[in-house]
Amino acid sequence: MTEQERWHELAQQLRVDSVRSAAVAKSGHPTSSLSAADLMAVLLAKYLRYDFDGPENPANDHLIFSKGHASPLLYSVYKAAGAISEEELLTFRKFGSRLEGHPTPVLPWVDVATGSLGQGLPISVGVALAGKKLDRIPYRVWCLCGDSEIAEGSMWEAFEHAAFIGLDNLTAIIDVNRLGQRGETMHGWDLDSYADRARAFGWSAVEIDGHDLEQIDRAYEEATTTTDRPTVIVAKTIKGKGVKEVEDKPGWHGKALDHADEAIEELGGVRNEVVDVAKPDRADPHVFETGSLELPAYDVGEEVATRKAYGDALAAVGKADGLVVALDGEVSNSTFAEIFAEQVPDRYFEMYIAEQQMAAAAVGLQVRGWKPFASTFAAFWTRAYDFVRMAAISRADIKLCGSHAGVSIGEDGPSQMALEDLAAFRAVHSSTVLYPSDGNSAAKLVAEMADRDGIVFMRTTRASTPVLYEPDEDFPIGGSKVVRDGDDVTVVGAGITLHEALKAADALAAQGVSARVIDLYSVKPIDEETLRAAAEATGCIVTVEDHWPEGGIAEAVLSVFAEDEERPKVVSLAVREMPGSGTPDELLAAAGIDAEHIADAALKLVSATAAHR
Amino acid sequence: MTEQERWHELAQQLRVDSVRSAAVAKSGHPTSSLSAADLMAVLLAKYLRYDFDGPENPANDHLIFSKGHASPLLYSVYKAAGAISEEELLTFRKFGSRLEGHPTPVLPWVDVATGSLGQGLPISVGVALAGKKLDRIPYRVWCLCGDSEIAEGSMWEAFEHAAFIGLDNLTAIIDVNRLGQRGETMHGWDLDSYADRARAFGWSAVEIDGHDLEQIDRAYEEATTTTDRPTVIVAKTIKGKGVKEVEDKPGWHGKALDHADEAIEELGGVRNEVVDVAKPDRADPHVFETGSLELPAYDVGEEVATRKAYGDALAAVGKADGLVVALDGEVSNSTFAEIFAEQVPDRYFEMYIAEQQMAAAAVGLQVRGWKPFASTFAAFWTRAYDFVRMAAISRADIKLCGSHAGVSIGEDGPSQMALEDLAAFRAVHSSTVLYPSDGNSAAKLVAEMADRDGIVFMRTTRASTPVLYEPDEDFPIGGSKVVRDGDDVTVVGAGITLHEALKAADALAAQGVSARVIDLYSVKPIDEETLRAAAEATGCIVTVEDHWPEGGIAEAVLSVFAEDEERPKVVSLAVREMPGSGTPDELLAAAGIDAEHIADAALKLVSATAAHR
Repeated sequence: MTEQERWHELAQQLRVDSVRSAAVAKSGHPTSSLSAADLMAVLLAKYLRYDFDGPENPANDHLIFSKGHASPLLYSVYKAAGAISEEELLTFRKFGSRLEGHPTPVLPWVDVATGSLGQGLPISVGVALAGKKLDRIPYRVWCLCGDSEIAEGSMWEAFEHAAFIGLDNLTAIIDVNRLGQRGETMHGWDLDSYADRARAFGWSAVEIDGHDLEQIDRAYEEATTTTDRPTVIVAKTIKGKGVKEVEDKPGWHGKALDHADEAIEELGGVRNEVVDVAKPDRADPHVFETGSLELPAYDVGEEVATRKAYGDALAAVGKADGLVVALDGEVSNSTFAEIFAEQVPDRYFEMYIAEQQMAAAAVGLQVRGWKPFASTFAAFWTRAYDFVRMAAISRADIKLCGSHAGVSIGEDGPSQMALEDLAAFRAVHSSTVLYPSDGNSAAKLVAEMADRDGIVFMRTTRASTPVLYEPDEDFPIGGSKVVRDGDDVTVVGAGITLHEALKAADALAAQGVSARVIDLYSVKPIDEETLRAAAEATGCIVTVEDHWPEGGIAEAVLSVFAEDEERPKVVSLAVREMPGSGTPDELLAAAGIDAEHIADAALKLVSATAAHR
Repeated sequence: MTEQERWHELAQQLRVDSVRSAAVAKSGHPTSSLSAADLMAVLLAKYLRYDFDGPENPANDHLIFSKGHASPLLYSVYKAAGAISEEELLTFRKFGSRLEGHPTPVLPWVDVATGSLGQGLPISVGVALAGKKLDRIPYRVWCLCGDSEIAEGSMWEAFEHAAFIGLDNLTAIIDVNRLGQRGETMHGWDLDSYADRARAFGWSAVEIDGHDLEQIDRAYEEATTTTDRPTVIVAKTIKGKGVKEVEDKPGWHGKALDHADEAIEELGGVRNEVVDVAKPDRADPHVFETGSLELPAYDVGEEVATRKAYGDALAAVGKADGLVVALDGEVSNSTFAEIFAEQVPDRYFEMYIAEQQMAAAAVGLQVRGWKPFASTFAAFWTRAYDFVRMAAISRADIKLCGSHAGVSIGEDGPSQMALEDLAAFRAVHSSTVLYPSDGNSAAKLVAEMADRDGIVFMRTTRASTPVLYEPDEDFPIGGSKVVRDGDDVTVVGAGITLHEALKAADALAAQGVSARVIDLYSVKPIDEETLRAAAEATGCIVTVEDHWPEGGIAEAVLSVFAEDEERPKVVSLAVREMPGSGTPDELLAAAGIDAEHIADAALKLVSATAAHR
């Protein structure tokens, strides 16, 4: 057989296996797999450099299916590479199988979960960035995209950043099969519309017939030899290619074929050939020089914003740990990531105002073992919430910081105030949610974040607040601090409200009420033990948070006691009306979360509790 | 004075007022206002058609500051138009002032809140869409954009959609002042980079010197005479223009000037001229023909998916209410918005896979009084969370439907499963969160949504489930249903889990345990009365939800009782491990939220409660 004949045979095998796996699953996306089979066959046979026995090999290329629904094709590629057996292929979509409906990293060759469209390419930018600037290994990132998902703005963030950084190690392959889930895409088979846009964004673009093996070969050749810029291969394909019954027909998205046996026959029958995929040359990741960890230390009583402490500590952690990388969304002078940028410039990446790309880059960087810290205003993490959700499915280890939380930012008004971030991040699987109140605790927690698995979020405060703790105090994740002891009522605060709680405790003490004040710096996981002890001692709790009432500190505290025999009464102080502009003090007062409102609520609660006893 | 001299005087007045307002506020973004003053002066003096005494006039143009931080300029424009007084201008950013740090619709001339960058343009697309396809009035939408925000992918969703729809009534003005918050943008003063991208996306683009009044005039002229496509004016400007101390200097973003008096002097001093802004010709919005409301009715016991009922009911509501409009993110055959698309095609808009643009379009449509229902998989609403957050600040009335919630979708796996949507939507100010369990309740709630203010979210289920209620039963928002009476334990479910709860109640009854089952179809607002009655009768509650444990039904229920004297024990059944693929039944069981787990939990809870009594 000629090389092209071998490629064709391989492509047909990938098609057959896509049809077979969906057939046994009775669901899945075979037609979306058939369109891209030729593209993947040539890639696997000639261009991919991958050690399937050693997926952790740092020199491996990366193959990311941004169109994650084409998972039958991806798994068929793995089978053709000898990585999975025919038997396992046919467990597709079964309970307990590693071959899920959309790819996840429960398979060792899958870098990240995809299936929420528009994410694979921005994540690929992150992986390619790691290759270029951190690992400094010439691996390539191959990203198979659907044409429908090009409508996602996040794809254009990726196009923009990849060109700006000059990621010639990245190749995007757009499988232009014309048909989305419910009908034709905006641009159908107008390849120019994709190529022109990509070129305007600074990419090299190659338009090909995605079923012409020679054209595919030449396009990959061009992609691998183009320097200074990424390449996109815009491939005209036919959805369902190879199975006449479904070729280019609407109504066949996400469905197993009606007549799988006939389709397999039409495709030339079952084959079980294994491709000897080329392995990469050995290479080791670049190692950055580091020193010892010298966290910032602030004097008790000194005024420092936790966001400033984040920046100071991040720079310190970065200088001590060569795997730490920082990203920021064009607000580094507000989040104080700029301190890292100044002190560790080789590992700092400006992501401009593109929060989705920033989150995706973080996910891509951690694919290669780097420890990304990404920051913006906490309010603007809402922009990347789908990426955070998917990062959890990717089992990604990323560290996110959100500054300028709550009404206490003052004059800028509600668009800049995060008031839903605690709820949003608590509701992410395996997340950690931190909310320090002073500089020293913030610094210690930044150090903890570096080695914490999963999605770790730190909420920081705009205003400077007095340092409460000595620099040598420890702040384990999952802990809390009793900053004031008391027996009559417990006040639970964090961040800006802890300082209001302390003022309230002073006012209460003057009225003979002894308030216990807890610094809930770890909102998730939460310190159940300390809260239970407080509830037992005081019988009632006031929670106070610069956040909407739902899903934040109050509900986290309520959940602790839900099943307990003794369940304290909990009064929740939170932001309940839409704030406007004003000074931080005016806005804290208007929201009913300042010292005066805390003291009032505590007094009422103590009276009511006493009356009821 | 010549026309151009008058424009110059007006521009200088806008500059002076921008400087003054920021000076009294001691914060704000005067330099970002100075760069665009000439652009706004010519617009106000010659091109804008706006009745400032009648902001509700349907024929008015729309002026949207996508770069919302240039609010000093916007408010100065309002003063120049005679809409606000000098006195009010100087209340900028003060507590209680309508002139917030970033614009919000507490001012009658502000259509939507901006300040989260990258939103004004996609929202403008929605307003222009309303003008073109619904109102059918030749008003224009003028959108002032910053150059930094062009990095947001959502801007490219807007570029894509505006061109695709052919919105020649939309003009975007990019104020290319080169400097972002912390330094230079990606493209600096490379106007071509913006114009080339926009042209590739199908726009007409005009590159000008944004301080040359003649060029500005010609550009607007071109924009207003270009047909079939939108126009972007790419204007090279100088940040801080007119005040030498800050012109084109980094470090002056978001700061009042140090020497405001000298700056005002340099700009020619205080002026209080009022422009006679041209009013639009009278025009009335198009009225669509409608009939009477005939909601779908399903027979009790019939199997119907709530997502199907959503589609049926939406079409019915649309045929009865000519203001109802539907949008979908390329999954209308899954959400069943396709039923509306077929039956009410004039008021249906396909938004492709661009959830941010879809949310923004909904916000834009409701600016003009339309009632948008937008749908996608509930998981993919996370993509537009920042737009939903901002929509609340816009006091927008939008109706969102998220289908395919939870692990019960089955084989597609976690990327497609919404497990955080209840938490996310509960934590939106003034939101309503609905989660029907059967076809008839879903249909009734869709009708309720049409006239409900604020952000209204409905979660629907993929699977068909038995109809529980007669078609004539009412489902007021804020209510719930006791679907099974009982005295020993209360089980609270919604959507898919309600059906599991009912099966559990049968199993419990067989063991002599009488379970009360509540259908919590309105998760927010929540029916406190029915829950309190249940707690009083049964003393303990099991909540069961196809959602992560945080921020969903369990915590909503806990919050009801937080301050009560009698607080029931609440056991929360929720999804606690990352799901994979499998059948719905397998995944419900694996998550511990199926009938068997509910019955087990209820039994244990009843025993424990009895033992403790």
